[in-house]
Amino acid sequence: MSFIHDDFLLSTAAARRLYHEFAKDEPMIDYHNHLPPKDIADDRQFKNIFEIWLAGDHYKWRAMRCNGVPERLITGDATPREKFLAWAATVPHTLRNPLYHWTHIELKRYFGIDELLNEKTAPVIWEQTEAMLAKPEMSARNILRTQKVRALCTTDDPADDLAHHEKCAADGFEIGVYPTFRPDKAYSIGDSAAWNAWCDKLGKQAGVDVNSFDNLLLALDKRHEAFHAVGGRLSDHGLNSCFANFAGEEAARRVFDKHRGSPTAQAQPGDLEILGTQVMMHVGRMNAKRGWTMQLHLGPIRNNNARLAREIGADVGCDSIGDYSQAETLSAFLNALDSENALPKTVLYNVNPADNYVFGTMAGNFADGTTPGKVQFGSGWWFVDQKEGMEWQINALSNLGLLSRFIGMLTDSRSFMSFPRHEYFRRTLCNLLGNDLEGGLLPADYDHVGGMVKNICYANAKAYLGLAKS
Amino acid sequence: MSFIHDDFLLSTAAARRLYHEFAKDEPMIDYHNHLPPKDIADDRQFKNIFEIWLAGDHYKWRAMRCNGVPERLITGDATPREKFLAWAATVPHTLRNPLYHWTHIELKRYFGIDELLNEKTAPVIWEQTEAMLAKPEMSARNILRTQKVRALCTTDDPADDLAHHEKCAADGFEIGVYPTFRPDKAYSIGDSAAWNAWCDKLGKQAGVDVNSFDNLLLALDKRHEAFHAVGGRLSDHGLNSCFANFAGEEAARRVFDKHRGSPTAQAQPGDLEILGTQVMMHVGRMNAKRGWTMQLHLGPIRNNNARLAREIGADVGCDSIGDYSQAETLSAFLNALDSENALPKTVLYNVNPADNYVFGTMAGNFADGTTPGKVQFGSGWWFVDQKEGMEWQINALSNLGLLSRFIGMLTDSRSFMSFPRHEYFRRTLCNLLGNDLEGGLLPADYDHVGGMVKNICYANAKAYLGLAKS
Amino acid sequence: MSFIHDDFLLSTAAARRLYHEFAKDEPMIDYHNHLPPKDIADDRQFKNIFEIWLAGDHYKWRAMRCNGVPERLITGDATPREKFLAWAATVPHTLRNPLYHWTHIELKRYFGIDELLNEKTAPVIWEQTEAMLAKPEMSARNILRTQKVRALCTTDDPADDLAHHEKCAADGFEIGVYPTFRPDKAYSIGDSAAWNAWCDKLGKQAGVDVNSFDNLLLALDKRHEAFHAVGGRLSDHGLNSCFANFAGEEAARRVFDKHRGSPTAQAQPGDLEILGTQVMMHVGRMNAKRGWTMQLHLGPIRNNNARLAREIGADVGCDSIGDYSQAETLSAFLNALDSENALPKTVLYNVNPADNYVFGTMAGNFADGTTPGKVQFGSGWWFVDQKEGMEWQINALSNLGLLSRFIGMLTDSRSFMSFPRHEYFRRTLCNLLGNDLEGGLLPADYDHVGGMVKNICYANAKAYLGLAKS
Repeated sequence: MSFIHDDFLLSTAAARRLYHEFAKDEPMIDYHNHLPPKDIADDRQFKNIFEIWLAGDHYKWRAMRCNGVPERLITGDATPREKFLAWAATVPHTLRNPLYHWTHIELKRYFGIDELLNEKTAPVIWEQTEAMLAKPEMSARNILRTQKVRALCTTDDPADDLAHHEKCAADGFEIGVYPTFRPDKAYSIGDSAAWNAWCDKLGKQAGVDVNSFDNLLLALDKRHEAFHAVGGRLSDHGLNSCFANFAGEEAARRVFDKHRGSPTAQAQPGDLEILGTQVMMHVGRMNAKRGWTMQLHLGPIRNNNARLAREIGADVGCDSIGDYSQAETLSAFLNALDSENALPKTVLYNVNPADNYVFGTMAGNFADGTTPGKVQFGSGWWFVDQKEGMEWQINALSNLGLLSRFIGMLTDSRSFMSFPRHEYFRRTLCNLLGNDLEGGLLPADYDHVGGMVKNICYANAKAYLGLAKS
Repeated sequence: MSFIHDDFLLSTAAARRLYHEFAKDEPMIDYHNHLPPKDIADDRQFKNIFEIWLAGDHYKWRAMRCNGVPERLITGDATPREKFLAWAATVPHTLRNPLYHWTHIELKRYFGIDELLNEKTAPVIWEQTEAMLAKPEMSARNILRTQKVRALCTTDDPADDLAHHEKCAADGFEIGVYPTFRPDKAYSIGDSAAWNAWCDKLGKQAGVDVNSFDNLLLALDKRHEAFHAVGGRLSDHGLNSCFANFAGEEAARRVFDKHRGSPTAQAQPGDLEILGTQVMMHVGRMNAKRGWTMQLHLGPIRNNNARLAREIGADVGCDSIGDYSQAETLSAFLNALDSENALPKTVLYNVNPADNYVFGTMAGNFADGTTPGKVQFGSGWWFVDQKEGMEWQINALSNLGLLSRFIGMLTDSRSFMSFPRHEYFRRTLCNLLGNDLEGGLLPADYDHVGGMVKNICYANAKAYLGLAKS
Repeated sequence: MSFIHDDFLLSTAAARRLYHEFAKDEPMIDYHNHLPPKDIADDRQFKNIFEIWLAGDHYKWRAMRCNGVPERLITGDATPREKFLAWAATVPHTLRNPLYHWTHIELKRYFGIDELLNEKTAPVIWEQTEAMLAKPEMSARNILRTQKVRALCTTDDPADDLAHHEKCAADGFEIGVYPTFRPDKAYSIGDSAAWNAWCDKLGKQAGVDVNSFDNLLLALDKRHEAFHAVGGRLSDHGLNSCFANFAGEEAARRVFDKHRGSPTAQAQPGDLEILGTQVMMHVGRMNAKRGWTMQLHLGPIRNNNARLAREIGADVGCDSIGDYSQAETLSAFLNALDSENALPKTVLYNVNPADNYVFGTMAGNFADGTTPGKVQFGSGWWFVDQKEGMEWQINALSNLGLLSRFIGMLTDSRSFMSFPRHEYFRRTLCNLLGNDLEGGLLPADYDHVGGMVKNICYANAKAYLGLAKS
């Protein structure tokens, strides 16, 4: 029997029934990922498995480094084939790491490959996949079709133009390709020079002279409107912890004025929080006004390795899980928006699983009798996006809130080969529920439990997010 | 088979044997809850299931809000029956939440109802329960008898009179109904006006003019003595984290004097901790002197939603789990009492399960060769009072201390329908132990393991707490 | 069947096969413990089971205190036999605590005893073990041989002479007995008098006048070299959290000068961190230079009970788990070494299991394509060194890094009877992997999975640590 078989991860008869009858055939809405919209606009055809699978995947890079692989074979000047072989030689060392499962589920679903990847099988797999990737059915858009993606949301800077998203729409592409509004740079005054350059870029894109705090907000609103026009319905924010310094708009104006036009300005303690709080409140209000969903990704500690950052740049697999205090600032921020009736639908993601119960309970404080599941405790994120982590998140959400209202999975990926993460999630979900069913912890009512499964796979996200195509 | 059947939660033969032979028939001591003593004194008869089940249960309110139910049907001006129907319609959406289990175990044990609660079954259940609640066997006192409660401890303010507890005793009610000394307000100078009013009330109740810090302590001692006289043997304290600012009594006097008589005084940083530390040390000493048990409930972040607090008040389901540092202050506080031989028996409860191991080990630092299990790592509390949370607590206690000395479960509830939480805990405990027995992790000695079960259900609490009737 | 049987802890056929075919017969490298090197140098013969088992084991003391045993029978003036009987009477109360398993696995492996220890069986077991301990095969060195220890690393102060380690080598003892460099006292200026005395002692041992910060570093280097000469290849460090105050060497010189020669000097806030950071950076550089491994043990809160510390001293079982922030300082410290190409092989141990994911991901940030698994997420430590804790650590490591590169278990013990902890770990590891195999989460390739087991038991530590005999 092949490693990835029909009942992979499904340890009970109940789990198998739930998955095959209720989960497997549902379409998907991948409402948060990092795919390049250009690849979809261009309907990119990938030259080889390196391009589609390794070129941008810092999870794999990290594992290779831990395995003692030299950087040349990871991000260096080795050939794509050499890098693939180095990855293949690493795979047998990843037993019990999610990469081992992901690797084989992806090879199986995209290329029908049942063999386990290792040094020996790698050369044949390289050729096999190269041949298949050359076929039209493996173009970016056709992959989305095959994977039953109904809509996906990329991650975009307010200063980005939205030409690729517009092209997808203009082409009449039947799958929704939407931008997500991610304004992290709007308050990143730690590097004042970079921030000033960004303000210039934003101003150009928005047609607003970003020469004041108020014009910054105005420019952001123009872009938010533009994102809305091409179908964007989510914002996204990456933070150590929520900003919650309510020194006020006047203080934010002072911070803005100090840094704007001064590439050498040094941020004082509190400056970032003062400006960040006001920007985030503004985004919250815009989201509420336009019926959007706000995603808060909280808790990582980034770019820990200065040497690698210097040598090969940011986001190369040297981020990890932080242990910041989260509850008070998150509560204060959500409450501030709620207090002015401007809390949008919100999804809270924590990267540190020790915070699951903090986040799971915080979500329950701001329900308001409108949208069911208005504040969501989001799916296991980044390092927690694996079987153990997803089970913890599902269990925490179940115990502390309403699993039945959960909008489910997303890939958060940079690779077109990551869509089987939805399958992986669904199998994990059905496995948990199947165990409960067989253990008598859930009533043996398959329509009821299976209906919940279906909703979590697709219908809840469709109803909650309100994307035009979905 | 009905959902709540004889072997609910018991997944092995060993678990079933442990539960049915050793746990099921034990009486219970509910040593911490929030039941209104008046209801017991008056032997209240409840008009309908709303009164006994929904009127005070912020767990249910919270779930209803998350399900998108408008506030009118939760705490608003809808009729009791409308609210019950709204709750019933929410129940099917609570799959995997402890409310789903609690709901059906309570309906089964109190009313013999096997049907699952939902929109369709609700109208009949409303009538059925209304009829049964009208019978004498469903009065408050008779419920306690049926549930085999031997003693219970309510939660009371030192400024409360104890008339209801006295009435229970004077009536010769065979079940112990005792007050718990909860002096949280004694240091709550954040709202100086409310604090002053409370000091006045305390003074009247104690027959002491609370015009100085020393008289505050004296008044507390008078009330502690009065609580003792009606059988109280526990204090209880709700804190973000332990006070541990040992600036001393003189400093506490200054804080007291600044606020007493000045309803507009603003607490400076540290003031609360300075006064709180001294009050808590005083309570610890009184507890030690009179052989009481001190309960520390640590870690929540309360009243997160200012809008709901404004509209409908405090304690309405908008509290959640905090992530405060606990170890250093808890250690310092317990050590300070221990150092003057004034550490009473103490139960530590954490609301954040990420703190289980911190609390589980802290309890072991202050054993002193007197009472077995002198410092207890308390039962899963609030959001952690469900199967997953109880299993974590039991496992942490097992691994870090002596499970055999555990004083076990309490309901912490505001409803007379919550006593089956003890059953739920016992089944969970027996299930864990049964798995261990069948897996060879425990010796196959039922008298030994079953004896421990019996002790945890009842005998340990009886011996440890020393309540007169129990 | 006896409680400790051949398949203890092994719940599946796959687990049994993995353990018996791949794990059981592997030798062990106990690369971190607290055994007295003198006992090995002298080839000590123990008089009775108290001496070898109870005399130094604060885990047992702690459990006895929690059970209400008076201090006289724990660390007081009772006879060894009385203390053993008191311990035996406590054992039945430790059900589900790791002590229950450890106790019986140790009695079985060292003495062939199958009976469960309790008050009744204790007298016979006392005599039985006394007789057996008198035999030559139970001498310290013969125990190491029987247990298949290939090498062990004790924990030593830089100011210690290394006579015992030298004697073991000079005797031609075939098992490696190596010192570990533990310089915690080098920065412990909190007690300036003790620190000055230690500096004097270090200076004498190193042949360097420790009259300046630079000479402190020099003296440490001399001792590091001496440790290296007798085969030491590891340093070890016990900290609440990593030092990461990079005020620099000049600042450290000022702190040194202020305290050196002044036994009454008071450390200012930051002083400890300033000096500690520089000492630790120095140790890191020495470790890197000589190819050593650095062990960071982070997170406990020690000596919580001032009364017991006063009465019977430090390290008597009153330590517990802290909840310090770890990520930022750990990242900064490792990065500072890495930035100057001076990060040695490093093992990170956390005592708080809530930090598992923080540590598990931090380890992955500093791989550099040299040693596989260069920064290790270390085995479950102290309170987490039990089945639940080891499973969490193995699962976290698996999900976040490369389990296949794990250097595995160590005893961290003060008793020659603790070597079966390796067996306990191996059974737990094989049990996890066996479950995965049977559940289809791992490929059914026993050579592959079993090969990983073998490596984790022995070969990885051998290759990674580079101890001369191993």
